Amino acid sequence: MSTVSPSVDPERDPRVKAVFDDIRATRQTEFINNMWRYLAAVDPALLASTWAEVKRVMATPGALDPLTREMIYITASIVNGCSYCVHSHTAAARAKGMTPEQYAELLSIVSLAGKTNLLATGLQVPVDAVFDRG
Amino acid sequence: MSTVSPSVDPERDPRVKAVFDDIRATRQTEFINNMWRYLAAVDPALLASTWAEVKRVMATPGALDPLTREMIYITASIVNGCSYCVHSHTAAARAKGMTPEQYAELLSIVSLAGKTNLLATGLQVPVDAVFDRG
Amino acid sequence: MSTVSPSVDPERDPRVKAVFDDIRATRQTEFINNMWRYLAAVDPALLASTWAEVKRVMATPGALDPLTREMIYITASIVNGCSYCVHSHTAAARAKGMTPEQYAELLSIVSLAGKTNLLATGLQVPVDAVFDRG
Amino acid sequence: MSTVSPSVDPERDPRVKAVFDDIRATRQTEFINNMWRYLAAVDPALLASTWAEVKRVMATPGALDPLTREMIYITASIVNGCSYCVHSHTAAARAKGMTPEQYAELLSIVSLAGKTNLLATGLQVPVDAVFDRG
Amino acid sequence: MSTVSPSVDPERDPRVKAVFDDIRATRQTEFINNMWRYLAAVDPALLASTWAEVKRVMATPGALDPLTREMIYITASIVNGCSYCVHSHTAAARAKGMTPEQYAELLSIVSLAGKTNLLATGLQVPVDAVFDRG
Amino acid sequence: MSTVSPSVDPERDPRVKAVFDDIRATRQTEFINNMWRYLAAVDPALLASTWAEVKRVMATPGALDPLTREMIYITASIVNGCSYCVHSHTAAARAKGMTPEQYAELLSIVSLAGKTNLLATGLQVPVDAVFDRG
Repeated sequence: MSTVSPSVDPERDPRVKAVFDDIRATRQTEFINNMWRYLAAVDPALLASTWAEVKRVMATPGALDPLTREMIYITASIVNGCSYCVHSHTAAARAKGMTPEQYAELLSIVSLAGKTNLLATGLQVPVDAVFDRG
Repeated sequence: MSTVSPSVDPERDPRVKAVFDDIRATRQTEFINNMWRYLAAVDPALLASTWAEVKRVMATPGALDPLTREMIYITASIVNGCSYCVHSHTAAARAKGMTPEQYAELLSIVSLAGKTNLLATGLQVPVDAVFDRG
Repeated sequence: MSTVSPSVDPERDPRVKAVFDDIRATRQTEFINNMWRYLAAVDPALLASTWAEVKRVMATPGALDPLTREMIYITASIVNGCSYCVHSHTAAARAKGMTPEQYAELLSIVSLAGKTNLLATGLQVPVDAVFDRG
Repeated sequence: MSTVSPSVDPERDPRVKAVFDDIRATRQTEFINNMWRYLAAVDPALLASTWAEVKRVMATPGALDPLTREMIYITASIVNGCSYCVHSHTAAARAKGMTPEQYAELLSIVSLAGKTNLLATGLQVPVDAVFDRG
Repeated sequence: MSTVSPSVDPERDPRVKAVFDDIRATRQTEFINNMWRYLAAVDPALLASTWAEVKRVMATPGALDPLTREMIYITASIVNGCSYCVHSHTAAARAKGMTPEQYAELLSIVSLAGKTNLLATGLQVPVDAVFDRG
Repeated sequence: MSTVSPSVDPERDPRVKAVFDDIRATRQTEFINNMWRYLAAVDPALLASTWAEVKRVMATPGALDPLTREMIYITASIVNGCSYCVHSHTAAARAKGMTPEQYAELLSIVSLAGKTNLLATGLQVPVDAVFDRG
């Protein structure tokens, strides 16, 4: 169930085709997952800007390796409770080499954070002065 | 402001002293941050079990390096909106070597996830069948 | 799947019938959506007070037009991650005239907020003094 | 308290100066609020891309008027629990003409959504088939 | 810091005075906490309807005792990350007899839920058929 | 749909069998719900530590009775938006004697908290000095 109907032939719109072509080229696969198909159905401009940002943030070489980036993305998606994103980024992390051991550790850390975050919020623990930077 | 009053001399309780001693030994510092002082004020048993889990999950050698673990912890803390935890784990990540470039990338990923998580939830995008494992 | 079983004939209870009749009259439709059927199964009093508040807040003429109200409702529902509410209020907004362009802009704003909210929380940006009212 | 130290003279970096100049020109004010000062301290590129998106989404004429956009932004910020963003966007909405009556209605709707969102989630109400679009 | 300015003399408005009088009578105290003072500054009607609901839900004799109700309220407030509400309802629970042992157990349960909730969401565990009621 | 595949015969691993045996003995039932089956598929050590904590926090006699504990757990699960946990803990609370009246009151309190939490956050109500403990 969704709030919009994806088009059967979204690539008839050249703006959509350009984005889908870039997704295929960047990811080296023919598969276009639903996120992009549904965004295309809402607004080709939103599709284009969202994909451009995902590509820039996730695929530009930088200070963090691709797998670490995906694990950060999974973490945010879990805590935000986004079912779709948990699925898609867990799959992406595995495609980038996440091992079962790494996944188990990630889940251990995320769930521990869920625990201590609520303890700190429940107690309203004051931030230590040494942590302040500005 | 907090919901509990930390003791001026929490280590008079030997259960608290044992945990604080272990924190100091594990972290190689005399500094005990407020999280542990306030947990001590609530319940020494909860203090002990929480610290034991933090130590096990964060300090046991495994499949993820210490900095990656802290970056996952920061991510969860940001999305959970835990001010204390954002401060303490950002400080911890820096102590473990997080560079300004890594921090900037982490923030770029977390905030991008905040964006796409809401798009997927707003559209109620159906999970692609290929993502399903079980 | 749900945590309660809706009755096959909920309107045998006159308190439920009174609410359902008022929903039909207010909305000019025979359709009673599941939210009300499931609330009826839990507690007719909770059903009545919830509907009374929805009717008062959403249908009383005031400073905001009906469509703006629904778009605020959709926004809250997306951020709260309430799948049912995202569906029902997106449908309601369309029934009140939300265009595809307005929906695309709403999603652009909500998702941008998801991004900047996490940046501000991640950085723990101090509130500017000029924003303070009290 | 923050996790980064803003520079005393951030505009010595020409990338920061360009963004700040554009903020001043767009908003017709000399005031640069903390969000931008702290982002500048993290990463001028993140500052630039974030501002560009905020300007595009919030200031490009389109299907929603500027005040409605701000009210959607406030709503998302409240539900996300972002204190900084609640302050800054409530101030922005007032600058764009939000009346006390409109603000009171916005709060009534957001808080009602907070209530019904939790009822639907608590009951796990199944989505009505008529709401499905795709 | 707040987004509204409370009045110095809110009870000059008879609608506010009526609510404040009822709060004092119901709670047997002269103290009116900030929540009501700030709501009064926004909208006396919203103040009145909110107080009426709080009084009805929290103070009407029923199936749950007053302390259990407050502990449920604290729990929701912690998970929602509402600092004000965590403080006010923890104080209220103590006024209704919550012991340090009960508070420690409450925090242990809430934080454990924070942990297992994220594990279930991270794994996207399918709901067992036996849990379904409707 | 899930991110992991549960084993058809998870108890071939003696660590899993030990936990499942303890769950059956503690709960006096042959039924092992999916949460434990999926955790077993991720990591028997995470399964064991999670179950040990659930058993300790939820089944050790203490200051709160078993039903109150489950109602606190349901509350946290609803606010965290964890569908699986809402189902499993609502079922557990009923097994421990939660009546329809108690469930209706719980939902009334949780949803009221959802409302007032957002009002306090929207207004950024300052915490009253009298609430401060530390």
